[in-house]
Amino acid sequence: MATNRRVLLKSRPQGEPTLDNFEVVEAPLPEPKEGEYLSRTIWLSLDPYMRGRMSEARGYASNVNLGDPMVGGTVGQVVKSRNGRFKEGDFVVEASGWQSHAVSDGGMSMKLDPAQAPLSAALSVLGMPGMTAWWGLMQIGKPKAGETVAVSAASGAVGSVVGQLAKLHGCRVVGIAGGKDKCDYVVNELGFDACVDYRAAGANLFSELRAAAPKGIDVYFENVGGAVQAAVLPQLNDFARVPLCGLISQYNEMQMNPGPDWRLLLVRRITVTGFIVSDHFHQMEGFWKEVPAAVKAGKIKYREDIVQGLENAPQTFIGLLKGKNFGKLLVQVSDDPTRK
Amino acid sequence: MATNRRVLLKSRPQGEPTLDNFEVVEAPLPEPKEGEYLSRTIWLSLDPYMRGRMSEARGYASNVNLGDPMVGGTVGQVVKSRNGRFKEGDFVVEASGWQSHAVSDGGMSMKLDPAQAPLSAALSVLGMPGMTAWWGLMQIGKPKAGETVAVSAASGAVGSVVGQLAKLHGCRVVGIAGGKDKCDYVVNELGFDACVDYRAAGANLFSELRAAAPKGIDVYFENVGGAVQAAVLPQLNDFARVPLCGLISQYNEMQMNPGPDWRLLLVRRITVTGFIVSDHFHQMEGFWKEVPAAVKAGKIKYREDIVQGLENAPQTFIGLLKGKNFGKLLVQVSDDPTRK
Repeated sequence: MATNRRVLLKSRPQGEPTLDNFEVVEAPLPEPKEGEYLSRTIWLSLDPYMRGRMSEARGYASNVNLGDPMVGGTVGQVVKSRNGRFKEGDFVVEASGWQSHAVSDGGMSMKLDPAQAPLSAALSVLGMPGMTAWWGLMQIGKPKAGETVAVSAASGAVGSVVGQLAKLHGCRVVGIAGGKDKCDYVVNELGFDACVDYRAAGANLFSELRAAAPKGIDVYFENVGGAVQAAVLPQLNDFARVPLCGLISQYNEMQMNPGPDWRLLLVRRITVTGFIVSDHFHQMEGFWKEVPAAVKAGKIKYREDIVQGLENAPQTFIGLLKGKNFGKLLVQVSDDPTRK
Repeated sequence: MATNRRVLLKSRPQGEPTLDNFEVVEAPLPEPKEGEYLSRTIWLSLDPYMRGRMSEARGYASNVNLGDPMVGGTVGQVVKSRNGRFKEGDFVVEASGWQSHAVSDGGMSMKLDPAQAPLSAALSVLGMPGMTAWWGLMQIGKPKAGETVAVSAASGAVGSVVGQLAKLHGCRVVGIAGGKDKCDYVVNELGFDACVDYRAAGANLFSELRAAAPKGIDVYFENVGGAVQAAVLPQLNDFARVPLCGLISQYNEMQMNPGPDWRLLLVRRITVTGFIVSDHFHQMEGFWKEVPAAVKAGKIKYREDIVQGLENAPQTFIGLLKGKNFGKLLVQVSDDPTRK
């Protein structure tokens, strides 16, 4: 393989992204300099935050420049190394973005041991989405046994871990997801107490939620915003906590969306905290203590939604923003030799 | 004085309260039973939260029933006692509401020593408003030296203490108030670094705030909501804290008001926390350690806006909701023998 296949940001989306916003190109394979290594990408993670990086609007991180490859977390294998820490054949979790190969100085890379967990888990339950779930729930939501935790995008990479963690900590857990399959999955496979299908519920979303959370909601882990948020917020109890992780239903909106009346936050003494997991990567002792062991023991399960081929990343990402995936969305860019 | 003058809630306001919502009546003087005392009200505190108590809508506390006296914090003097803890002549801070006399079992009353501070201070800087300021700023806002703190309703009973406390803790303090007199007062008398007159600023509110807080805002102590909030929020820095204390500009609104787009809270990792000081009366060690000494030393100043006569309470309260007061609003219901 003599070339580097890359997906570039060609133009900024107006509202919903389209295929025209991306361009797939072939570039010469980069050469590692002294202190660098070259890796081939095996797994590319697709995540909702990437929509923000496509915009010019002020976001949490530097946005992608036009003509640059899209950013993203990846798992790769070192194919050539001039860095003493990484040798040929090593597996690494890194942030190579939407491309088949990348050169790195290894500063942000971490080696993976395939005997410990499947390589791809480093992009889901044992990686950024899992840490996001743990930080938001445990450090912001601070659930107490017996409380009710609601989570939107419940079958997703983050929401599924939120709900299972909350169950492990003795809470009643109500998921909100789009479609019967997703709802059945979080209840039957993941052990949530209930799940409301917001698509089927339509105008009954509020009352279906009320039935699923008869004692009100103490922690609402917010991934979606919009109509789901509007149905949840009036059901928050006094002193409820809202870890604000994402607002996927609003990411394609061109205009600002009005939020809820703050009188609700005031009279119920609610705390809303926006957070981004990358601020807290250095504070993950509790995550490492709790989550990998729970995954190994089968107490936290996860589901992957795998798409083959880097060239399919743009279409798949557009679907992600509409909730078309079911589980952690991954693009397999090249062969994973550890997976049968 | 053989009768008890009382101001009753006659009807619930639709939007802005009117004089018709209140009724002044004379009732027989109540008799204390065993374990109770009778006090005459000297000072009645008027506070924005009372608007919520006039409504049927779910608020933080039980609302006032039609035909009952309006609630409120008071300072009184015991005139007859059948309670061993309180003797005739004692001064007490209590919650007798809008009436000239009240019977109490003393369960929520606290004796006042007029040698320590003026009696009325127990309703402002050393009472509920001062505790509100301290809790919201110190426990929720958590200002660090060098940060910028903005506070709306800056010359009010709460805002004035917030700003002075923040100055004592090494912050840059920007007040927002309505009118030149209030702005001059918080800068020249209270030592705020700057004050923006939102009435004079009009459409320039955003840019005047920017000039007053050139490094952005780290803590916004929210008392007002509405247009002031809309101008402040986009100027919040990453990791800003918003103690949500009041939304006085919205209290008369019949409809819910849309709030800000939560995408702002998300990308800047902002925390908004609604709070009510009465939840925290038992957690005020830090307040008692810091504030009374600072008041005595003249490092925290306060200003009272005194209206004579209980019969003027309704009109004065209506004005409070429009920002007509200047300083802590108090109704003098009867003679204060400690005040020359």
